[in-house]
Amino acid sequence: MRRWNGWGEESTVVELPAHGAGFLAEKIGTGQVLPDASLEQVLAQVPASRLGEPHALISVDAEVRVRHARGQSLPDWLAVREGRFEVFPDGVALPESAEQIRELLTWAQQQDVILIPYGGGTSVAGHINPQAGDKPVVTLSLERMNKLLELDEQSLIATFGPGANGPQVESQLRARGYTLGHYPQSWELSTLGGWVASRSSGQQSLRYGRIEQLFAGGSVETFAGTLTIPTFPASAAGPDLREMLLGSEGRFGVISEVRVRVSKLAEAENFYAVFLPDWPRALQAIRSLVQARVPLSMLRLSNAVETETQLALAGHPAQIAWLERYLALRGAGDGKCMMTFGVTGNRQQNALSLKQAKKQLKGFGGVFTGTLLGKKWAEGRFRFPYLRHGLWEAGYAVDTLETSTDWSNVDDLLNKLEHSLRTALEDEGERVHVFTHLSHVYGQGSSIYTSYAFRPGSSYATALERWKKLKHSACQTIVNNHGTISHQHGVGRDHAPYLAVEKGELGIAALQALSTHFDPEKRLAPGVLLVK
Amino acid sequence: MRRWNGWGEESTVVELPAHGAGFLAEKIGTGQVLPDASLEQVLAQVPASRLGEPHALISVDAEVRVRHARGQSLPDWLAVREGRFEVFPDGVALPESAEQIRELLTWAQQQDVILIPYGGGTSVAGHINPQAGDKPVVTLSLERMNKLLELDEQSLIATFGPGANGPQVESQLRARGYTLGHYPQSWELSTLGGWVASRSSGQQSLRYGRIEQLFAGGSVETFAGTLTIPTFPASAAGPDLREMLLGSEGRFGVISEVRVRVSKLAEAENFYAVFLPDWPRALQAIRSLVQARVPLSMLRLSNAVETETQLALAGHPAQIAWLERYLALRGAGDGKCMMTFGVTGNRQQNALSLKQAKKQLKGFGGVFTGTLLGKKWAEGRFRFPYLRHGLWEAGYAVDTLETSTDWSNVDDLLNKLEHSLRTALEDEGERVHVFTHLSHVYGQGSSIYTSYAFRPGSSYATALERWKKLKHSACQTIVNNHGTISHQHGVGRDHAPYLAVEKGELGIAALQALSTHFDPEKRLAPGVLLVK
Repeated sequence: MRRWNGWGEESTVVELPAHGAGFLAEKIGTGQVLPDASLEQVLAQVPASRLGEPHALISVDAEVRVRHARGQSLPDWLAVREGRFEVFPDGVALPESAEQIRELLTWAQQQDVILIPYGGGTSVAGHINPQAGDKPVVTLSLERMNKLLELDEQSLIATFGPGANGPQVESQLRARGYTLGHYPQSWELSTLGGWVASRSSGQQSLRYGRIEQLFAGGSVETFAGTLTIPTFPASAAGPDLREMLLGSEGRFGVISEVRVRVSKLAEAENFYAVFLPDWPRALQAIRSLVQARVPLSMLRLSNAVETETQLALAGHPAQIAWLERYLALRGAGDGKCMMTFGVTGNRQQNALSLKQAKKQLKGFGGVFTGTLLGKKWAEGRFRFPYLRHGLWEAGYAVDTLETSTDWSNVDDLLNKLEHSLRTALEDEGERVHVFTHLSHVYGQGSSIYTSYAFRPGSSYATALERWKKLKHSACQTIVNNHGTISHQHGVGRDHAPYLAVEKGELGIAALQALSTHFDPEKRLAPGVLLVK
Repeated sequence: MRRWNGWGEESTVVELPAHGAGFLAEKIGTGQVLPDASLEQVLAQVPASRLGEPHALISVDAEVRVRHARGQSLPDWLAVREGRFEVFPDGVALPESAEQIRELLTWAQQQDVILIPYGGGTSVAGHINPQAGDKPVVTLSLERMNKLLELDEQSLIATFGPGANGPQVESQLRARGYTLGHYPQSWELSTLGGWVASRSSGQQSLRYGRIEQLFAGGSVETFAGTLTIPTFPASAAGPDLREMLLGSEGRFGVISEVRVRVSKLAEAENFYAVFLPDWPRALQAIRSLVQARVPLSMLRLSNAVETETQLALAGHPAQIAWLERYLALRGAGDGKCMMTFGVTGNRQQNALSLKQAKKQLKGFGGVFTGTLLGKKWAEGRFRFPYLRHGLWEAGYAVDTLETSTDWSNVDDLLNKLEHSLRTALEDEGERVHVFTHLSHVYGQGSSIYTSYAFRPGSSYATALERWKKLKHSACQTIVNNHGTISHQHGVGRDHAPYLAVEKGELGIAALQALSTHFDPEKRLAPGVLLVK
């Protein structure tokens, strides 16, 4: 069963190894454990639904409402663990077809109800939280629309219901010999419709592209009517309506069908780890690899602190110590940075890509360690969100932030971002443990993905205040230093106040014009993406 | 000097070989030559400019107005050759900076003038033709803003003025060791700003991407203010404003600065020709190659009639006959289809790509002919537009049409499109010579590029009527059979009436909302892209 108060399946437990707790205690002090609320305590707070007569497609069950009230941001986490939800949706709609979505739109208009489109509920930016207000709020979950509806094997296009989550997408495709190849870290829970609505990027975007490249067309139900975007391999017929929908975060309509570009399953795939002696050389190496267009499927680089942290939290301290001695002997000692890369495709091509990558990396002092750590990365690729539980139980809060910028600015923005987090709680005398990786690289630049651990303090209120300081400091640093407010998590409510810096007032006004066109009464996810 | 009444430089003359004229005469009858107007005759028709007091940035010189009155569509060609322009712009503005563009926008508002943004004047869809009306019309040419302004060698981003044409872009980049790699057939004349505004695609889009992938950001001057789009390698921060500008065809604003993703010059590049025995196998072969993701830089396939036509128009009949005997002996006789492909990159990768491509093509009966014909293709890649002159002088009109569709529909749409053209003049007892190639291929589908030659009849009026029948029949066939109205030429005025089929009324209304937002008085290129 899916956890009501955290990430993923209850059966999956990722604990912090003892060695890891010691590592963090040394970095930022002894953990501070706060008490958890029970589901019963939360259920007792759920107020009566404000919806009038019952609607056949809408559940007003208290537990269903609890389970759709919050996403997975750190403030959500704190609210859920404390049992202080504040607002619950008045009901959860579960349509099974585009027609039923249209029926719900009409109903919402008649009943003066706010609707929140809902995929997997994995937002880390406050996309799906109902807000206090006079109007009833209904969460519109697409979970029942999760089927592969059509597969065009000549054109490699698959048509899905918008509510298919990662495993549902891949299992239905793999049964026929295909893959979408889209693996965001939230893959186990997040959905195709959600990926489109929030411009998701998967861990192997280097081969398969971001969701922007995978999304070929589909349908969206809006208050102005149904918009159906046909699939073309490419078109010069005016601005691309797909790109209007991508990133619209539910503000323009409810996605009712998604057509995606799929691939035949590759002949072979392998992941490798290489350690670079220091950050300057590591940064040059990764840029050089991607700009040389070596056909890799994944390329990721941890900075020195992340490398150290990963090795510390990995468990198996004896084996890690052996590895570190080996690396040090070959020139990758203190300050080393771990790079992981993947090759996916036919064996001949993979062999050449591996050869070219190894040769280039050697030129930057890289120490190649083979497939062992690469395999570990692949096995644990969706585990990080579970680790929040282990850290929390050890008394630490952890959150992540991400941006992207051009190569000429990557190092500077990364340093400023880390600095802003590291020093954000200085006035309280609290240390913050900050580390970063580059996980999506492009010829032009890279994403920057920063994690930070801090102590929650003596109460949930303190923890939330600390988070607000950290988050605001980091977001300001990002937008004031030529970073996008999000490379992959989206805007939601948490990033909306920072969006105007990159879109410009005129760009924001253009998006407002579209929102007014599709949703004149501002009934869909108000406050998400656009502050107004 | 650039021709005032046709394509390109006066010094470049491409004549139709005698053998080619014979070939066409056999296919559609003896050519019909119509008399040309002289520049003097046209200059005598230019009316007085309706602009009041002279503006320092605007030329009202008659020849300048003639040279900016028409694009390169077939109706433009007929109008220009006949000397029947109908409408001339009242002046041509030549700004040198974003500030001067803004000054011209303000002036246009004050003077109640229509503005037509103008790049290289190479539109084949009626983008830049002034229309008869009460308000004066000024063509806003960006030709003076053609410099490389900045090159970020770490991020591989070059900043250009919007008016840089293909040779200006490449010469400024190549001097520094870089290339944009964007080569539409109009490359000698068309401009960076025009490519962005009309979603251009270059012949090596398989490696470098379409202009959508190359355009990283920039500025556009609108009546609502300046919109500056920052460069990010990727972003999940809401709908992408770049994609709003791409394909906007001057309706939202005047592009004043373009930042593009460039590449280091490749170590090696080669083009090869292969002949496939028949169309069904050729189609399977090209789809299989692109879906296998063999890293090629160009991939193009002529159907049997185009192959026959190219060989007939190539001149050198003795050599061609020798080639055809050789091909027939190896299984590629009548009905053979010529495929050209390119590899660009480092030598090791190129060697593997060539090996894999050859192996796959052999499986479909492909006869590999080495680099000779590939070289010829590369040398002549921008010559086709000049051939219109040679054909015209031999008494034939020629035009091209293009679309794209998913692989499962390519053959069907291609056949219907060719049929619609081949039979469009049947009521007049006229034959039309129609042939097609696929020149941009994607995993999902392909572009379809169809050329057609017909006899102009006894007058320019007849020629235009024939073209209208052909064009309308083809456009209807495209949009009613799941093709986009344009894969690379854009919408302009000629395709605007067909756009709603693919965008939907709701999509058109969304674009209208944006046009109203940026240009409330509809002062920029009215009627282009959107009928209203």
